[in-house]
Amino acid sequence: EQEDTDNGQSLVFADLTPEEMVQVVRYLQENLGVPLVDASRALPSDNCISYIDMQVPAKAEVLQFLDGGGARPTREALAVLYFGNQPDPNVTEYVVGPLPTPTYHRDVTVQKYGGKVPYHRRPTLAVEYKQIAGFLRSQVFPTAPSFMHQNVSGFFLHPVGLEVLVDHSSLDISQWVVSRVFYNGQYYRDMAQLESAYVQGRISVEKVKKAPRDGDFSSMKPRAPPATMFPVQYELQGPRYSIRNNHVVFQAWSFAFGMSVNTGMRLFDIRYQGERIAYEISVQEALSVYGSNCPGGMSTRYMDGSFGIGRFSSPLVRGVDCPYSATYVDVHYLAQSQVSRIGKNALCIFEQNLGSPLRRHYSNLQSFYYGGLVNSALIVRSIATLGNYDYVWDFIFYQNGAIEAKVQATGYMSSSFLHGDGLRYGNRVWEHTLGTIHTHSINYKVDLDVGGVKNSLVAHDMAFEMARAPWSPEQQIERPRLTKKVLDTEDQAAFRHQSKMPRYIYFAANSKNKWGHQRGYRIQIVSFAGEHVPETSSMERAISWARYKLAVTRRKEEEPTSTSIYNQNDPWTPTVAFADFINNETITNEDLVAWVTTGFLHIPHSEDIPNTVTVGNSVGFLLRPYNYYDLDPSIYSHDGVFFTSE
Amino acid sequence: EQEDTDNGQSLVFADLTPEEMVQVVRYLQENLGVPLVDASRALPSDNCISYIDMQVPAKAEVLQFLDGGGARPTREALAVLYFGNQPDPNVTEYVVGPLPTPTYHRDVTVQKYGGKVPYHRRPTLAVEYKQIAGFLRSQVFPTAPSFMHQNVSGFFLHPVGLEVLVDHSSLDISQWVVSRVFYNGQYYRDMAQLESAYVQGRISVEKVKKAPRDGDFSSMKPRAPPATMFPVQYELQGPRYSIRNNHVVFQAWSFAFGMSVNTGMRLFDIRYQGERIAYEISVQEALSVYGSNCPGGMSTRYMDGSFGIGRFSSPLVRGVDCPYSATYVDVHYLAQSQVSRIGKNALCIFEQNLGSPLRRHYSNLQSFYYGGLVNSALIVRSIATLGNYDYVWDFIFYQNGAIEAKVQATGYMSSSFLHGDGLRYGNRVWEHTLGTIHTHSINYKVDLDVGGVKNSLVAHDMAFEMARAPWSPEQQIERPRLTKKVLDTEDQAAFRHQSKMPRYIYFAANSKNKWGHQRGYRIQIVSFAGEHVPETSSMERAISWARYKLAVTRRKEEEPTSTSIYNQNDPWTPTVAFADFINNETITNEDLVAWVTTGFLHIPHSEDIPNTVTVGNSVGFLLRPYNYYDLDPSIYSHDGVFFTSE
Ligand SMILES: [Ca+2]
Ligand SMILES: [Ca+2]
Ligand SMILES: [Ca+2]
Ligand SMILES: [Ca+2]
Ligand SMILES: [Cu+2]
Ligand SMILES: [Cu+2]
Repeated sequence: EQEDTDNGQSLVFADLTPEEMVQVVRYLQENLGVPLVDASRALPSDNCISYIDMQVPAKAEVLQFLDGGGARPTREALAVLYFGNQPDPNVTEYVVGPLPTPTYHRDVTVQKYGGKVPYHRRPTLAVEYKQIAGFLRSQVFPTAPSFMHQNVSGFFLHPVGLEVLVDHSSLDISQWVVSRVFYNGQYYRDMAQLESAYVQGRISVEKVKKAPRDGDFSSMKPRAPPATMFPVQYELQGPRYSIRNNHVVFQAWSFAFGMSVNTGMRLFDIRYQGERIAYEISVQEALSVYGSNCPGGMSTRYMDGSFGIGRFSSPLVRGVDCPYSATYVDVHYLAQSQVSRIGKNALCIFEQNLGSPLRRHYSNLQSFYYGGLVNSALIVRSIATLGNYDYVWDFIFYQNGAIEAKVQATGYMSSSFLHGDGLRYGNRVWEHTLGTIHTHSINYKVDLDVGGVKNSLVAHDMAFEMARAPWSPEQQIERPRLTKKVLDTEDQAAFRHQSKMPRYIYFAANSKNKWGHQRGYRIQIVSFAGEHVPETSSMERAISWARYKLAVTRRKEEEPTSTSIYNQNDPWTPTVAFADFINNETITNEDLVAWVTTGFLHIPHSEDIPNTVTVGNSVGFLLRPYNYYDLDPSIYSHDGVFFTSE
Repeated sequence: EQEDTDNGQSLVFADLTPEEMVQVVRYLQENLGVPLVDASRALPSDNCISYIDMQVPAKAEVLQFLDGGGARPTREALAVLYFGNQPDPNVTEYVVGPLPTPTYHRDVTVQKYGGKVPYHRRPTLAVEYKQIAGFLRSQVFPTAPSFMHQNVSGFFLHPVGLEVLVDHSSLDISQWVVSRVFYNGQYYRDMAQLESAYVQGRISVEKVKKAPRDGDFSSMKPRAPPATMFPVQYELQGPRYSIRNNHVVFQAWSFAFGMSVNTGMRLFDIRYQGERIAYEISVQEALSVYGSNCPGGMSTRYMDGSFGIGRFSSPLVRGVDCPYSATYVDVHYLAQSQVSRIGKNALCIFEQNLGSPLRRHYSNLQSFYYGGLVNSALIVRSIATLGNYDYVWDFIFYQNGAIEAKVQATGYMSSSFLHGDGLRYGNRVWEHTLGTIHTHSINYKVDLDVGGVKNSLVAHDMAFEMARAPWSPEQQIERPRLTKKVLDTEDQAAFRHQSKMPRYIYFAANSKNKWGHQRGYRIQIVSFAGEHVPETSSMERAISWARYKLAVTRRKEEEPTSTSIYNQNDPWTPTVAFADFINNETITNEDLVAWVTTGFLHIPHSEDIPNTVTVGNSVGFLLRPYNYYDLDPSIYSHDGVFFTSE
């Protein structure tokens, strides 16, 4: 176990404690001057707390505190309120402070978004889904009694072919109406029209067998009993990392972690050998764009941040989700409620011996020797279950000073009822189930600070030059040479998916290593993504971060995230449009942020039943030292092995 | 442990045994009618055995044996002889059989290569390198006594700036001459001219300190003592795989393995649930193309197969190269000798719990349940040490029916003496050491047989179609849809590096799964490679496999490998030119082979000292079921976990 020299400094990045959340709720109830209904039972026409999260302090202030001996930044909360019970219904964001005992709140909505946030952009509350279900059950389905009699319920893999479009724009739920009904390829004005067509025998009914309680084919119940135990990893002398509050130390590494209600896992103040390499690395968004010939499927563009990647952190199961020996950490969040909840085992931290060498060389040429180092790395993981899907989020810290961010997709696919020309949109995966084609796009914010906050972005690559062999001029050599380019504006540093990207791109420091090269950290992306949506789409700007494999911008306190939770329900008027961050500012010798998009195309196939597997559905990026150290720092590892015949 | 139902059938793919090699050598000595000198002390003007390997029997014959109840194919050896002591010096390849007691030999050279193999194309024997060193020491260096007095020796990371071009084309080593001498940026006719310039003080001498015996900075000696033990994996109930001879069984998997002297690891008859998925998956070649301003560096195009990827299999070190608990397997080979050698622990086989879920879903929406399966996979590994570099070769078998091939690069970089405009070709990594820019390109042969030998190649991808929302025609939807294409000729199935490749490419069977889709296995490539050399290069055809990320050809018994060991020393007249395999034959409903190229650009940097790390220098490909099974076969794993609140 490494010594943790952090004296609670990392708490500046810590999630709110349950006690802090109690105080913030109490403060809001007492000081907003309006009645607040608990969001778990609020009507659209009520006021309620949508969620409360830590207000991340400004970087300048934090750096002054961490590096400059400045005061600890005031601890504040961000409180997001739905004001349905107002003449001008809207969503308002407040900064509430100071914690633990708030005395002020500041409406930051206009400052953050350039205007008020209209009420219809709000992420839908769980209770409103229930209200819609109630409306369907009590008001809508009874108007088609004969038809509904033969119908069944389904989930994820059990579509039955009935979809109802509800206009729930009115804050008065008694005003909700059905706009359209879809059944097995046909559209109807309402359920009554469907009923009448059914009674007259004018529609073809696909009898879907009622799914048994265990889900039948969609069940993950093992089809074989347990047998010999799989291999398990042991820490013979205990863990070699330490966790104190939200601070982790592992060998030369240290960092702080947190869980944002919306965007999920985030790391701050990542240091190696005491020197900060990154100020922040955080998940920003997970997007899926679907195709289908069913109305729900064809309009699905999931922006998971709006549902809450952090909020839907799943409890991690020992031995499957993470190794038995991992350390499991709870998180606390307050969302759609007035009391905080505990997310049990929402994070796990463990060292993993990857079973292969980080480096090795065996020599029997001039002399006999062997040197090597096993690749044993620290992993921080959370898994978000967003409805059907489960995303496994990893940050991995290697002994050579490299960091990897990796996301793996598993869980249930989203499916459509198979009818008509459905096979234009995917593969049939069960009797009535169409596995619908879709994308997975993931965005990360990577605020590298390489040798200080002022960095430049440099591209290295290879080109061939034609040369005559100096010893034999008739012989031509196609000689690889190094090409170098400083990417000095945001426009040059924004790489669309179809564009060719230099193979080495790195954040360069002002300082040089022992050999005279600019110290740097390289960004290496593993992705199978393609175009997110055509840029001509009226909703493209809402997900314009997904245009770019990589975009490097000047860091701005006003550009903390690449998207907004309000983009999901009004993508045509995006509350945050990432494309606007890229306005050709110069990016030499500035505090820079890299926005990395990674992803893959998913054409579901029979082997996605019951669940998508992580193998092959794993993407991410690496941050690798590039002339940053004077030599490979893993040479200082205690795990090195060396022997020689001498 | 799984039951192995193989009754020695896999021995049809087995490497030669030491006893078999003894017999082949004895047979050659007695039956070729010419004296054979042991290759370890042969002169270029002698006859000798270069190497002996198993002659892989023809596929048709093997399938007849394995599947059709046919006779066991005759076991034969391939013997490669250097005939220096002949009027027309040449390399001759013989098939020798039957084993274990040969009675015949057949010259297959012309049949394989369309002509005789000229002697100058032969891979250089180790003894010839020694003879060249002796020539330098006794004939060349003494002609520059003053200059040499200040010079030193170096290796890999210790270039001293002196390079000598020796014309050793004569079979009479007394006729060898120096063609050119290079020192610190200048070219000289010979050492005498260099000596004279040195004595006259006309050359700038870079005094390189003599490297200490432990290599100084280039040593891998750990700089820190051992401390707490890293995590280690245990098989609590013993291994869950079995190895009998060259046959491995792990859960639903089975396969045969072997080690080719030249091309390294190869697998045959890979089956899942008893059904063959691939007939052969094998490493073909590892290529590196270097740039430098030193003559050796700028002419380096390593084709490692010509040195022998299998022959240079390194002994694997327990706990670093593979887990402690792995099974280690010896190999036997005969190369440049008349007796076979043992490669101790040249292969390791182990199950690795990867510490993350293969699949999982946690539900608390409609009902509460959890299902998951840990990702525990079987890995077969060898590591080839080819001079400076070490390539870690993995084949990984997952519980969902996917296979991964992965190669990681480590070991020492190749370097040049830093002088002049050296930084055009790489980064300075030590006092006098230039880490020279280069590529790594790896080629694999993948003879998938999906649901039988007759397959077609199909591409799936996504495109956007513009649609009006059926429920609201004023609303436009950019709808993803599935695009499908049968790639029906070799030309269509050859994807150059810069070309756009469909995101799903799969070998499709004639048969369909339960849902009516062609059963298939998809090839998913992870690569960071770019152009190998310009196609206009006079040596390009020798490495033309590296043009393509993926090329699928009709399988031919006459096209067993994508390159030849004779291409290295005469790349201008390639003995095998892969580009010729691609002659636009139709590839629908044929026995197909996929040739996969993967790789990366390596711009060495300070962190490559002392050794390149595997993190980020790892590439490969996956073979994934695509509508091959009716559902994910991992559901039949004994390791599944499921629980529910009910
Ligand atoms: Ca900007
Ligand atoms: Ca920065
Ligand atoms: Ca052909
Ligand atoms: Ca085949
Ligand atoms: Cu998916
Ligand atoms: Cu390299």
